[in-house]
Amino acid sequence: MSKPTPLSGFPELLPAQRVVEQLVVDTLRRTFELHGFAGIETRAVEPMDQLLRKGDTSKEVYVLRRLQADDAGSDAGIGLHFDLTVPFARYVLENAGKLEFPFRRYQIQKVWRGERPQDGRYREFTQADIDVIGRDTLPFHHDVEVTKVMLDALRRLAHPDVIGLPGFRLQVNNRKLIQGFYLGLGLSDVDEVMRLVDKLDKLPAEKVAELLVAEAGATPAQAEACLRLATIRTDDDSFVDQVRALGVSHELLDEGLEELATLVRGAAPLADEHVRITADLSIARGLDYYTGTVFETRLDGYESMGSICSGGRYDALASDGRTTYPGVGISLGVSRVLVPLLSRGVLTGSRSVPSVVLVALTDEASRPASDAVADALRARGIACEVAPTAAKFGKQIKHADRRGIPFVWFVGTDEQGAPTHQVKDIRDGNQVDADPAAWTPSTDDLRPQVVSPTTEETSS
Amino acid sequence: MSKPTPLSGFPELLPAQRVVEQLVVDTLRRTFELHGFAGIETRAVEPMDQLLRKGDTSKEVYVLRRLQADDAGSDAGIGLHFDLTVPFARYVLENAGKLEFPFRRYQIQKVWRGERPQDGRYREFTQADIDVIGRDTLPFHHDVEVTKVMLDALRRLAHPDVIGLPGFRLQVNNRKLIQGFYLGLGLSDVDEVMRLVDKLDKLPAEKVAELLVAEAGATPAQAEACLRLATIRTDDDSFVDQVRALGVSHELLDEGLEELATLVRGAAPLADEHVRITADLSIARGLDYYTGTVFETRLDGYESMGSICSGGRYDALASDGRTTYPGVGISLGVSRVLVPLLSRGVLTGSRSVPSVVLVALTDEASRPASDAVADALRARGIACEVAPTAAKFGKQIKHADRRGIPFVWFVGTDEQGAPTHQVKDIRDGNQVDADPAAWTPSTDDLRPQVVSPTTEETSS
Repeated sequence: MSKPTPLSGFPELLPAQRVVEQLVVDTLRRTFELHGFAGIETRAVEPMDQLLRKGDTSKEVYVLRRLQADDAGSDAGIGLHFDLTVPFARYVLENAGKLEFPFRRYQIQKVWRGERPQDGRYREFTQADIDVIGRDTLPFHHDVEVTKVMLDALRRLAHPDVIGLPGFRLQVNNRKLIQGFYLGLGLSDVDEVMRLVDKLDKLPAEKVAELLVAEAGATPAQAEACLRLATIRTDDDSFVDQVRALGVSHELLDEGLEELATLVRGAAPLADEHVRITADLSIARGLDYYTGTVFETRLDGYESMGSICSGGRYDALASDGRTTYPGVGISLGVSRVLVPLLSRGVLTGSRSVPSVVLVALTDEASRPASDAVADALRARGIACEVAPTAAKFGKQIKHADRRGIPFVWFVGTDEQGAPTHQVKDIRDGNQVDADPAAWTPSTDDLRPQVVSPTTEETSS
Repeated sequence: MSKPTPLSGFPELLPAQRVVEQLVVDTLRRTFELHGFAGIETRAVEPMDQLLRKGDTSKEVYVLRRLQADDAGSDAGIGLHFDLTVPFARYVLENAGKLEFPFRRYQIQKVWRGERPQDGRYREFTQADIDVIGRDTLPFHHDVEVTKVMLDALRRLAHPDVIGLPGFRLQVNNRKLIQGFYLGLGLSDVDEVMRLVDKLDKLPAEKVAELLVAEAGATPAQAEACLRLATIRTDDDSFVDQVRALGVSHELLDEGLEELATLVRGAAPLADEHVRITADLSIARGLDYYTGTVFETRLDGYESMGSICSGGRYDALASDGRTTYPGVGISLGVSRVLVPLLSRGVLTGSRSVPSVVLVALTDEASRPASDAVADALRARGIACEVAPTAAKFGKQIKHADRRGIPFVWFVGTDEQGAPTHQVKDIRDGNQVDADPAAWTPSTDDLRPQVVSPTTEETSS
């Protein structure tokens, strides 16, 4: 066939780029497991009636059909999942009798959306979700828990010694707070008010105020109070006093203020120079069915991409009619964060292969001797490969260099016919005697690292 | 919604079962990386014209359609991949200018086939592939290499200290050997002979002999020689003498014998009580486009499932018309091996959560003290969780027990108000003083292990 061209919206990575993605996924997984979250995977497909329960996403679904389906109807009912929440809710209901609640799970999988590809939007992408789900009830401290777990994960991703991604700002709000505020103001259609205030991203404040008067029945004073609430942003619990100063009171507002203040105080110790948490009272998460805490996250320097890590509290993540399963969770867009950084060359892997060592080959007849060195290194956890051909040593060194392999190992024989071993660090040319049963590379060299080629500095 | 029911052919795992799958995938990945194979992932979809290049698989493909596609044609051209070879060949052609050859890659991903689900056949399943691909040429020693790498991986999977799967028998043959033998016998339609001999799985030898005479133009003596070749099975290179004793000679036969003997000799040192390698001259791999080495693998005790790990040498894994990329590879059916073992309860995980420790909660007010213990343990790589409510300690211990968490940590205060710490091994009830900054569980307890509940013995 002729040279294939990429499919728009389906990003793929070169081996060195994949090193970064794999390190990110490993770091997320490790963090989630340290916090007791169990890893599950769900099938890629769900029945269409499940996928279409939220009407507004219907246009994004990929429907599946078997090419040679005997009866057109047999497969008409399944499509690819567009998020990991719908499948997780279904998994919980299907397996409720076999799960222990509260159930903490993480899930790192691809999802598919048939939308028009554009910058930062893909048709296939990886998400990393954490959720805690309870049976009948789920105490509020789990909202604090998922916040801390995701902050812990983001902090590791942003730390220069781990991955070195740009920093993150986690923005939190609480639906009870904003709904209680609107109710306390005397506005009754809180969903409509929230929908209009959510337009502050795209419209000037005066225009939103007009809409609140025209479409949500607000007085100009009520509209102004709504807009003032949405301007409040603090990195500690001082937002409480700022809200109180607006002179509105309502039981639901009190509850929301208390929850959000508890969450910000609980998560604040995890904030550092790379990862910050802000109570941002403009965050509402649009039409999603959240009932308390809501999250959004901006990547430093890439704020225009929008939120790359979002979620919140659902009072009914799943329900089978008899039992209700409340949940709180947050979903990180792994591809949304990484693909722009990788495709712009901001980050890549330090080498395109796992090998630390290329074992050189003197001649084809001595391949068993080179294989034996490789086996001895592998037995001690050192990834390596043997040169494909007995080319001139200069060519074998270039072979290693093109892949980013830092060391080349030479096997020779001394005057008595006994094997001799030397290893060369091809970055500085330093070559020393070495024992295949004892030589060990530095921890930084042992596995591929993340590097920032644009700044010509490694992250570690 | 009402309780959902599973979708036939789309197996899903409970958290404890997923522990086993994750350990298997981690072991495969680690082994492949030690041998210098780079991990890549390809998108789930390929253009339909690529998926349909092999006519015989067309009925298995799932075609994708956007639910709200504006023009019916725009998405008509993509479907889900049914293996990892077609996408890999496409990836190599698409990125040839950015890859270094020979290129060693592993790929562990889900694939989809719309076939009728039956025992051991799924519509969604995970495969683990390794391939080495060259540009223009690829020396034979890479056939030996992929054999050794997969044997190394299978040996770890079968070892009772790692996963403890049943043993494996890798069966190898060489297309040159059998084709050369048929040509040496004077038969010209070697593909037809191979196709008929391949029926020995399903038909008695006499019937196959009749077919060889009737459909492949063989004399009864030629037919008998073909069948005798297919009965040869040896665990070393003694098959060479057995073939020679049949009195057939041909240049291609010599080449095949030499290659297969080299491969068996090279791989034999990796065989042990769990994993064996056999030269099996009945293996032909049906209609696939292999041109030399061919592999199949049987799982001990589950031979009726057929081959669970297959592959071989392609002289043209990919070609863009100007450049040809020969390859050799092998693909392990991860789901095909694991799902039957997990669903029959032969194996499962030792616990359903990553946590080694449940930190008990004295009362809700002391949650920060319990959180602090959990943070101290996590900082040293010990996964843990804090009890969800301050229930009676007996209930908290049961909470740990139901999840398989081996240790419960109690935080108290002494008469001077200083914190006290004790940890209980709930399996034997032993409770001792412990320091959150120093206490460490055994390596076996640190992470979930694979256990065999049916024999009531753990694998480690």
